[in-house]
Amino acid sequence: MPADGPPRTASAIPRIDARRLEEAIRSFGRIGALPGGGVCRLALSDADKAARDELTHRMTMLGLVVDIDAIGNIFGTRPARAPDGAAGTVMIGSHIDTVSTGGLYDGTFGVLAGLEIVAALNDAAIETERPITVAAFTNEEGSRFQPDMLGSLVFAGGLPLADALATRDADGAVLGDELRRIGYAGDATGPENIAAYFELHIEQGPVLEREGIQIGVVSGIQGISWHAFRLTGRSAHAGTTPRAMRRDAGMAAARIVHDAYEMGARMGADQLVTCGSLRLAPGLINVVPQEANLTIDLRNPDDDALRDAEAILLAIACAAAAEAGVVVEHRSLARFAPVSFDPALVADVERVATGLGHTTRRMHSGAGHDAQMLARIAPSAMIFVPSAGGVSHNVEEYTAPDDLARGTEILSRLVLHWSCPSLDGTRNGAGA
Amino acid sequence: MPADGPPRTASAIPRIDARRLEEAIRSFGRIGALPGGGVCRLALSDADKAARDELTHRMTMLGLVVDIDAIGNIFGTRPARAPDGAAGTVMIGSHIDTVSTGGLYDGTFGVLAGLEIVAALNDAAIETERPITVAAFTNEEGSRFQPDMLGSLVFAGGLPLADALATRDADGAVLGDELRRIGYAGDATGPENIAAYFELHIEQGPVLEREGIQIGVVSGIQGISWHAFRLTGRSAHAGTTPRAMRRDAGMAAARIVHDAYEMGARMGADQLVTCGSLRLAPGLINVVPQEANLTIDLRNPDDDALRDAEAILLAIACAAAAEAGVVVEHRSLARFAPVSFDPALVADVERVATGLGHTTRRMHSGAGHDAQMLARIAPSAMIFVPSAGGVSHNVEEYTAPDDLARGTEILSRLVLHWSCPSLDGTRNGAGA
Repeated sequence: MPADGPPRTASAIPRIDARRLEEAIRSFGRIGALPGGGVCRLALSDADKAARDELTHRMTMLGLVVDIDAIGNIFGTRPARAPDGAAGTVMIGSHIDTVSTGGLYDGTFGVLAGLEIVAALNDAAIETERPITVAAFTNEEGSRFQPDMLGSLVFAGGLPLADALATRDADGAVLGDELRRIGYAGDATGPENIAAYFELHIEQGPVLEREGIQIGVVSGIQGISWHAFRLTGRSAHAGTTPRAMRRDAGMAAARIVHDAYEMGARMGADQLVTCGSLRLAPGLINVVPQEANLTIDLRNPDDDALRDAEAILLAIACAAAAEAGVVVEHRSLARFAPVSFDPALVADVERVATGLGHTTRRMHSGAGHDAQMLARIAPSAMIFVPSAGGVSHNVEEYTAPDDLARGTEILSRLVLHWSCPSLDGTRNGAGA
Repeated sequence: MPADGPPRTASAIPRIDARRLEEAIRSFGRIGALPGGGVCRLALSDADKAARDELTHRMTMLGLVVDIDAIGNIFGTRPARAPDGAAGTVMIGSHIDTVSTGGLYDGTFGVLAGLEIVAALNDAAIETERPITVAAFTNEEGSRFQPDMLGSLVFAGGLPLADALATRDADGAVLGDELRRIGYAGDATGPENIAAYFELHIEQGPVLEREGIQIGVVSGIQGISWHAFRLTGRSAHAGTTPRAMRRDAGMAAARIVHDAYEMGARMGADQLVTCGSLRLAPGLINVVPQEANLTIDLRNPDDDALRDAEAILLAIACAAAAEAGVVVEHRSLARFAPVSFDPALVADVERVATGLGHTTRRMHSGAGHDAQMLARIAPSAMIFVPSAGGVSHNVEEYTAPDDLARGTEILSRLVLHWSCPSLDGTRNGAGA
């Protein structure tokens, strides 16, 4: 279906209702609402159950067939025109859990945009050749249970179900028990064949807003590599201990962080370096620090570059520790390889967006998303819309209604294109 | 009196009793003793009162005339042979208060060495031409009331008495009230004319032990300059915020600390740099820090060099803040100019020590001492003996009995020389 040309038939264009979408987002924002704004809907909490109940109710009202799998992922499927249609479902997914002081948009927008698209298809009485599935994955945030993106990871076969169900939160609650408690331990398996997976999400960063661009065409998710360093020296009097006799954990820590940032600057804009946490002990003005604990967060969309950065970081830490005469211990806290989305799907997103007259830029996602797990088993892509001030995981999170509608409109065209392949038959034809 | 030649008269050599000295130190170690070793005798606490009572009792038993001044300094004076003797008293001083988890030696050793010298003079029935005063100054540690060295500072005229008496501790207790409570708000003024002031102290650092040297000839006290920096940037997602859009307080903090240490290395061994405290907020692995708070402790025995270091540090902080796009606030927390001890007295210490066959090295004191206040009003000098492992302000603090006796012996020769000027008449004659 040409996205920028006249439609073949009037009925083949679903009409997105921006106000209906916004009201749905506001409605979900009341589930687990925080007193000062924002929401707290930690995975498998009572608030998450309430949001799941509302979501499955809305799915049922839209005529979707609701399936819950064993890890609690929710799949609402709009059947295809005929059982002998094209293979696989077209999936629109994201999540409805939040961080403990979350906003109204992260995750929830992507799921509700899916419902809006289904509603628009229903309104226009459009039947598709492939089924369309709206998915809400369990525990994407990782705020209550680790790892994050747990539901989509299990769905994509990256984590054994039994391991996931045995995960405990900080208070010792077992994920499987909590799933049963809220009534979302299902026995379905979810769609087995996914023709294309799309995730529409707020950017969570400042780039689109700063550059005045409407749509982020997400070509992949950068790799993430988390490191913790513990430096052990010897506490000493800052006045009476000559430099050569010190084992100064603070000096070593400062050199590691400084040199890591210098490395990032040398490696170019794709290499992000963040020292989010650094603490010295005993932490007294006139005492040479005995111990330093710090973390370094490395991100890069290129896995080879990320491996280079990791190797350089370890060399930096060893050199700094040797110079200061302290012992360094290193722990890798997490590592996710970069994910590249399906090049054809990414090109489709770009063509549809530009075809509708929107400004676009290709970008990598700086944060993790369910799409990075789905990319293991299906052609996947993401669409970003701007975040006001780049603020996210925060009660102040905001994306303007026009931006929400713009992204949903693009997604609806893509879904229609993929769910009705006979309309133009070619994968690359979305904007042609 | 020649220290290394035969004495003029047998009776002119006081004999230090190493065991009596050690027993006195152990006895004071039981006052305010901590369960696991060490002592807590915070200034003007009940334990400090008990130690003061024991000290004044011992002074009286030795025939000293005890005076308490208005800030609670204790002076025990052994009268001179005749009222028309040489002008001024020869003072041996230090303090008996401790930090909250202190050792047995810091301060206390210097006062009890004075009592041992008086006892030895008494044993040998030696009369001196100048009186000898053993002094214990109030609140040297500064652990309870600030500033440290408060009693000697007031005595030397560096702080008005009324201001000192109005000082409050962390719980709001007023120093003057506490002095009265423990019965040490006196009405004497202390000696008005001090011919020479000597302070014998453990090194509190590792230099003498590491170098295998018995006696530290202290030529002065290095200058101290304390700085606090607060950096304010903007919290941001470590994955979604490009480097150019960050205001990373952690990056700026690491650069300040790193560059400050580099400056210290360039300036040579006399310039000490210590970052004892550094904390990032919010302190999360994947969040660009919004705020950093850090301290820098600069020390140098040369005031011009210390001023250079201060100026460079401020330039470093401004450059680092500008580079990171963060706001920097600076506070000077304390500044003490370096103190040079009386060159003739320092030379006397060296000559007496080497004359007795001990190994010596000249050194600056890295920590503050009452001697730095006394140096304002009298020729002053200090003698250091080794600290095991360089440990001090710690329950593990230890100096071997031989080292205690060695230092006390040297001090006794110096005191005798200065209190009997007619014996050899020249100031520089102690070891000639």
